[in-house]
Amino acid sequence: MQQRQEAARKLVGARVRHLRHRRGWSIDHLADRAGFHSTYISGIERGRRNPSMWSLIRLAAALECRVGNLFPPEAEALPGIGGNF
Amino acid sequence: MQQRQEAARKLVGARVRHLRHRRGWSIDHLADRAGFHSTYISGIERGRRNPSMWSLIRLAAALECRVGNLFPPEAEALPGIGGNF
Repeated sequence: MQQRQEAARKLVGARVRHLRHRRGWSIDHLADRAGFHSTYISGIERGRRNPSMWSLIRLAAALECRVGNLFPPEAEALPGIGGNF
Repeated sequence: MQQRQEAARKLVGARVRHLRHRRGWSIDHLADRAGFHSTYISGIERGRRNPSMWSLIRLAAALECRVGNLFPPEAEALPGIGGNF
């Protein structure tokens, strides 16, 4: 369970970094847009954070994408069918 | 900010309840599937909780939908353009 959560955090973090790079933005710029500290963005990108729903909404708005775009299918598949553990 | 977070929690909670009802499931059944306590599901549905990324992934897997389906566009629009506050 802990390992799967870690894997999910890393996949979402890599996706956030990819989207940020595609826009040519620094971590500081994204942090400014989202109203977060840059260390928080950096922590998300490195898979060290498990951001809340509201943080994800703010992050997606700052990246001008849908929240769903932050979640690669591999991350969503981690809990297994039916979400059971 | 606090008000917008509250509005987002309520919109996502209503969406979770809608998806659960559409499947004809009780709160207990969804809780079992996701591996959560039923009071946690109930709190999410009533907009009292700000679930983490990993909880959202587990909830979507239990509901057999994408994480993005839990977020209505009105909830995603709450931070404003660019995510600025």
